[in-house]
Amino acid sequence: MKNIVLAFSGGLDTSFCAAYLQRQCGYQVHAVTVQTGGFSPEDLQAISVRAQALQVASFKILDLTQQYYERCIRFLIFGNVLKNSSYPLSVSAERMLQAISIAQYAKEIGADAISHGSTGAGNDQIRFDMAFHGLLPGIDIITPIRDLRLSREAEIEWLSKQGFDLDFSKAQYSINKGLWGTSVGGKETLGSKEYLPEAAWPTPCTATTATALSLRFEKGELYALNGVVGDPVTLIQQLQALAQPYGIGRDIHVGDTIIGIKGRVGFEAAAPIIIIKAHHLLEKHTLSKWQLYWKEQLAGWYGHWLHEGQFLDPTMRNIECFLEDTQHTVCGTVFIRLEQKHFTLTGIESEHDLMNPQFGSYGEMNNTWDGNDVRGFAKIFGNGVSIFHRVNHKNDDELKNAKL
Amino acid sequence: MKNIVLAFSGGLDTSFCAAYLQRQCGYQVHAVTVQTGGFSPEDLQAISVRAQALQVASFKILDLTQQYYERCIRFLIFGNVLKNSSYPLSVSAERMLQAISIAQYAKEIGADAISHGSTGAGNDQIRFDMAFHGLLPGIDIITPIRDLRLSREAEIEWLSKQGFDLDFSKAQYSINKGLWGTSVGGKETLGSKEYLPEAAWPTPCTATTATALSLRFEKGELYALNGVVGDPVTLIQQLQALAQPYGIGRDIHVGDTIIGIKGRVGFEAAAPIIIIKAHHLLEKHTLSKWQLYWKEQLAGWYGHWLHEGQFLDPTMRNIECFLEDTQHTVCGTVFIRLEQKHFTLTGIESEHDLMNPQFGSYGEMNNTWDGNDVRGFAKIFGNGVSIFHRVNHKNDDELKNAKL
Amino acid sequence: MKNIVLAFSGGLDTSFCAAYLQRQCGYQVHAVTVQTGGFSPEDLQAISVRAQALQVASFKILDLTQQYYERCIRFLIFGNVLKNSSYPLSVSAERMLQAISIAQYAKEIGADAISHGSTGAGNDQIRFDMAFHGLLPGIDIITPIRDLRLSREAEIEWLSKQGFDLDFSKAQYSINKGLWGTSVGGKETLGSKEYLPEAAWPTPCTATTATALSLRFEKGELYALNGVVGDPVTLIQQLQALAQPYGIGRDIHVGDTIIGIKGRVGFEAAAPIIIIKAHHLLEKHTLSKWQLYWKEQLAGWYGHWLHEGQFLDPTMRNIECFLEDTQHTVCGTVFIRLEQKHFTLTGIESEHDLMNPQFGSYGEMNNTWDGNDVRGFAKIFGNGVSIFHRVNHKNDDELKNAKL
Amino acid sequence: MKNIVLAFSGGLDTSFCAAYLQRQCGYQVHAVTVQTGGFSPEDLQAISVRAQALQVASFKILDLTQQYYERCIRFLIFGNVLKNSSYPLSVSAERMLQAISIAQYAKEIGADAISHGSTGAGNDQIRFDMAFHGLLPGIDIITPIRDLRLSREAEIEWLSKQGFDLDFSKAQYSINKGLWGTSVGGKETLGSKEYLPEAAWPTPCTATTATALSLRFEKGELYALNGVVGDPVTLIQQLQALAQPYGIGRDIHVGDTIIGIKGRVGFEAAAPIIIIKAHHLLEKHTLSKWQLYWKEQLAGWYGHWLHEGQFLDPTMRNIECFLEDTQHTVCGTVFIRLEQKHFTLTGIESEHDLMNPQFGSYGEMNNTWDGNDVRGFAKIFGNGVSIFHRVNHKNDDELKNAKL
Repeated sequence: MKNIVLAFSGGLDTSFCAAYLQRQCGYQVHAVTVQTGGFSPEDLQAISVRAQALQVASFKILDLTQQYYERCIRFLIFGNVLKNSSYPLSVSAERMLQAISIAQYAKEIGADAISHGSTGAGNDQIRFDMAFHGLLPGIDIITPIRDLRLSREAEIEWLSKQGFDLDFSKAQYSINKGLWGTSVGGKETLGSKEYLPEAAWPTPCTATTATALSLRFEKGELYALNGVVGDPVTLIQQLQALAQPYGIGRDIHVGDTIIGIKGRVGFEAAAPIIIIKAHHLLEKHTLSKWQLYWKEQLAGWYGHWLHEGQFLDPTMRNIECFLEDTQHTVCGTVFIRLEQKHFTLTGIESEHDLMNPQFGSYGEMNNTWDGNDVRGFAKIFGNGVSIFHRVNHKNDDELKNAKL
Repeated sequence: MKNIVLAFSGGLDTSFCAAYLQRQCGYQVHAVTVQTGGFSPEDLQAISVRAQALQVASFKILDLTQQYYERCIRFLIFGNVLKNSSYPLSVSAERMLQAISIAQYAKEIGADAISHGSTGAGNDQIRFDMAFHGLLPGIDIITPIRDLRLSREAEIEWLSKQGFDLDFSKAQYSINKGLWGTSVGGKETLGSKEYLPEAAWPTPCTATTATALSLRFEKGELYALNGVVGDPVTLIQQLQALAQPYGIGRDIHVGDTIIGIKGRVGFEAAAPIIIIKAHHLLEKHTLSKWQLYWKEQLAGWYGHWLHEGQFLDPTMRNIECFLEDTQHTVCGTVFIRLEQKHFTLTGIESEHDLMNPQFGSYGEMNNTWDGNDVRGFAKIFGNGVSIFHRVNHKNDDELKNAKL
Repeated sequence: MKNIVLAFSGGLDTSFCAAYLQRQCGYQVHAVTVQTGGFSPEDLQAISVRAQALQVASFKILDLTQQYYERCIRFLIFGNVLKNSSYPLSVSAERMLQAISIAQYAKEIGADAISHGSTGAGNDQIRFDMAFHGLLPGIDIITPIRDLRLSREAEIEWLSKQGFDLDFSKAQYSINKGLWGTSVGGKETLGSKEYLPEAAWPTPCTATTATALSLRFEKGELYALNGVVGDPVTLIQQLQALAQPYGIGRDIHVGDTIIGIKGRVGFEAAAPIIIIKAHHLLEKHTLSKWQLYWKEQLAGWYGHWLHEGQFLDPTMRNIECFLEDTQHTVCGTVFIRLEQKHFTLTGIESEHDLMNPQFGSYGEMNNTWDGNDVRGFAKIFGNGVSIFHRVNHKNDDELKNAKL
Repeated sequence: MKNIVLAFSGGLDTSFCAAYLQRQCGYQVHAVTVQTGGFSPEDLQAISVRAQALQVASFKILDLTQQYYERCIRFLIFGNVLKNSSYPLSVSAERMLQAISIAQYAKEIGADAISHGSTGAGNDQIRFDMAFHGLLPGIDIITPIRDLRLSREAEIEWLSKQGFDLDFSKAQYSINKGLWGTSVGGKETLGSKEYLPEAAWPTPCTATTATALSLRFEKGELYALNGVVGDPVTLIQQLQALAQPYGIGRDIHVGDTIIGIKGRVGFEAAAPIIIIKAHHLLEKHTLSKWQLYWKEQLAGWYGHWLHEGQFLDPTMRNIECFLEDTQHTVCGTVFIRLEQKHFTLTGIESEHDLMNPQFGSYGEMNNTWDGNDVRGFAKIFGNGVSIFHRVNHKNDDELKNAKL
């Protein structure tokens, strides 16, 4: 009997897959759930129970949280990655790492095939497929949901006929929670015009008192929250617990899917947004003009390519190498004020701060150069353009009428 | 007697210049003030009185507001330009256009020299110098403030000795107001750590009731506010009047100056921020993936190069041409909710909306393709990377240990 | 009976398709051949005879040469597009335009389906498919060669059984000729190591006497060859006839295919290479530094995206708009010397030449600035980096040991 | 008495400086000559004699050849850097490294000032100034040639009056030779139209017999020439000796100087050009599509920024880090044929070659995917653009008339 590894979440679609792969396709099903920081112990317990109810051959939880940070989130912070200027890639990032760890697990146990429960209309199918192709070339990828296109009711009915009478309460919204944010899709997000109602957000907006906090970074990585040192994963979780009740970091992402349609999805991601904005501010103080410029180019691509499921492209390793090399001086403390649905970066402190009055103060003092230096600079800096206009507008009349 | 044109604001520095250029340098001074939407009629009246008190040979107000929109702001909107992801270039943009119009005025009246009152420590000196060099090659540029480096007190004393006993009350903060936002500098912004206090912001945060509004764009330009059609300049001003009392669009910009130091400056720019974010959202619905990508690259440079005083570079015209050509389908209405210090883009409506359920709904339905299409896509889309890994990791052990 | 339009070249594969679509699939076949400047009248006559022998319902020649220039080649010249620094996209460019014109023809005659004869291992299938999907959404695309994967012999045998005893002499190399160059594939190009032998190149290398010639451009377009004015298409053809016998513009392109494998193909393209290099040199004299920079970025993408079959992406129109807008000053004459397998751009003459001794001569004279201006420039230009090092290397020892 | 370090070449300008700094400015002059691979032992001996004749306080030769390779040329190869698609940055690269080593020498001996002999019209002054400012902030930079603007004759006369009757034969062309190529400026290169005559080129074109050779690279660095292993510096010199007599790698670079004017300079650089083109070809076989893309972006900037004297910008270190990280698989042999004024890359051999018939052969065979996979790919790959056109061209008439 052939063995198949199934990416398993315990929801209706992957439950259907678990049963279908056994009963219809004749596989021994090895269900795997990947923890990326979003499941509580109770969640994991429930998934485990569900897996057993579905009579899978084996069930395994892979805890990827730390590795997810090390291999991916770290670089999203270094790169200040916000897709389309707003979305921290909460789902894209974790899906790709989940797919890779599942492929590696399938390789370890020598599986004959591999399966995921994605539909044919989203990005996740591409991410799973690409990770599986990349790491397990030639393996059979079985995708019952994508191929059968059954309705929710039909799936439940089929399960019931097979003797699996499980409870699949339909949530109004589809929620995906991980270390780097929670996505919320459904109803309003299927159209372009409406916003998610207050009740749709997983974390109620209960905090009302403004509060100040500080984040310390060392070489671009989180080092302390309010002066208390901790490992980055823990600090992210602490910040999230602290800030999400303010309603911070809620938004709706609109973007191009990998498959060419536009998609819209809500997310709440207080910690990711605050961390990225704080890190970026620290960089504005500690990196050179062109480090900032090129980081932005490369990080934009990194986020795009990660989103498109191309995490295994060696280009991504090269970009990570670049990003990490820029972080030597990104050390310091960022001061933040949280208010309802809003936060302010109030300032920074860093021994690498390049805004240093020893050299000059913007608009006020110039200590290491004088007016003549700048006069010369401006003349030469504009020299090429000045020559361009003199060559191309031979006389004043032409110049006067020229579209400058 | 030689004629000099002076960029005149009525403040201490340019008042000193007006007197100094007459008394010390022997020029006939032609003072020019450029309106870019920030001066009230009373402001302009006061500047005019001050100019006369300084006995200038002539005083002229150039109203650039409409032209400023046409030649610059329009493209900043098309490009969703926020320098360092936050600053709408409120000052950079208008200073450059002011400098150009002053240079053109100097050319018209056949001035022998031209003058500005910038210090040697800021960006504006470069913008003035470069516009003057570009349009008036070879002209003498006289910059008393930059060259003499006098203290405020010394300037007032000199003026007094010359018989100009004018009132120069020192504001705590240096404010620069224009159509595209107001900058606020001083005290806290001279260091890295402190935020501006509530009292420093020109517009008090008085609005407390959440309100909904809509902005309609036609080919990327503002067309209507809450359904009332108007010209873009008027709509910007109306939106600003409506939204600024919410405290929206306040922030501190930290960035690289043209002269190599880091600078920090506060700004309030409710209308620019809302317009840019709304326009960007509409584009996410109506432009193709790669239009969005390349717009971002070019617009990023456009903002950078404008900030650095290079508006006259012909590259800028080419980029404007590109940006404008992308706006054909950027038509539609954006719905917005204003709350205190915070706004939400709740959704859009557009006949060019590419998020169209006729073709498929993200994560839900795929109407014009099927699972096999995507299966094939994912296989081929990852083909190159898959081959890379197979060629370079000859066996499983290597793969297992490989830094992916 | 349903009508199908078939992209027809008269070779074995498309002849097989013509018969197969009639006999096996029951279509009325409308064969179309697109002239892009590579077919002689005799070639076209032979294709027509072949079409009739295959009993197609109709046969049509679409002459796209002029339109191909107007809609595509022109922009490849404006952009100096050489993929991977060497390949003028001879095939990619014309295939895309062919596919579009065939799709438009199918729309005109109201065809029910459309067909091409590409294999499953190349780029052309993607280009055809994408043009067909883009312009004829939902139409059936029938691709017998890709689907059946028959050997050459099997195709001939099937044709013969159907009563089509045609002569299909197998060429040693697959040749594709058009206005923008000729590709040569087969044998050596299937591996990585060997070069094409002299006999494989379509045009023998017979010219041995060095000759001088000149090309005049107006707004980036070819205007005259050796002082004789002509339309661009004619000038390209004349230059090709003149220069190809020198063996100029021969090379082997190695690159990434759309489908993820690497491909290698020879090409001879004397006129395209000479024109692009001459045009680029003229631009180095007549465009600003940043026009050159941004043209290169956008044109690189334009070539890449055209190669990948994405000509219909609206981004391409935006880039064309940018490129055209840069060409106002690209007027002048380029002087060239042809030698065997080699050419030299000896110099240029242009009224827009920015290398103008009136302003200064490189390394020799500075007429419009002085040493102090440059001294100031260098100080300020290096200011940011200088501050970076002073802040980050607190003392000399650190500096001495620092990786700069 | 104060000490000054002088960048000394033994030519008229720096000889004048050596004397002037002593006699007129009262410095003890420490002359330094930096070997970057271009000086023969005889050259160095002559420079030493000249320095003594000028009675300098000390004379020092710094041999930078190996370090020049390690810190700069290596990355120019990794990046395939050819400025404006043609110039290997022969002078720009070495000047920057020379300036840095001279600054470090000045720091070592505790010099009070530093001097170079550049004019006010070239790039070198900026490179010297910027390296000196960056490494010796606040030091006096004395530049007699730039400041005095003396004629050649006036310099000789002044030297003679000071008792220095040295022989300064004027060469027709200014030659600068180093490990990464030789520049040739003068006469023809001062205008735009004429080419350098045969006699102007330092290396006569004497080789007439075509020859085959091979270059082996390991991780992007030269490893063997014709199978003989050697260190990169030696291999570059051997290849240069072998290939330059063919007249290969001669061209005239036209480009934007740092100071805004256009400049033109001849160069011969057989080894750099062959190495870069060979290395690039090997990369086309061994790197992924997007590694090639991003390398090109970053390397283009690296070359630009190096040329502009910004080698000390920390961004350059980050880019070097990226480039080096891409080279793991760039191992293999490139086969080359040299002919007069022309060379051909005939093919490559590499165990990392991604063009591997195991997976598929371009246009011929597809082993690891089938026609349906590609059919699906093309459909999805064009999905977004297809939707764009369907949404925006509501009916066929519009589509027909649309500018696609």
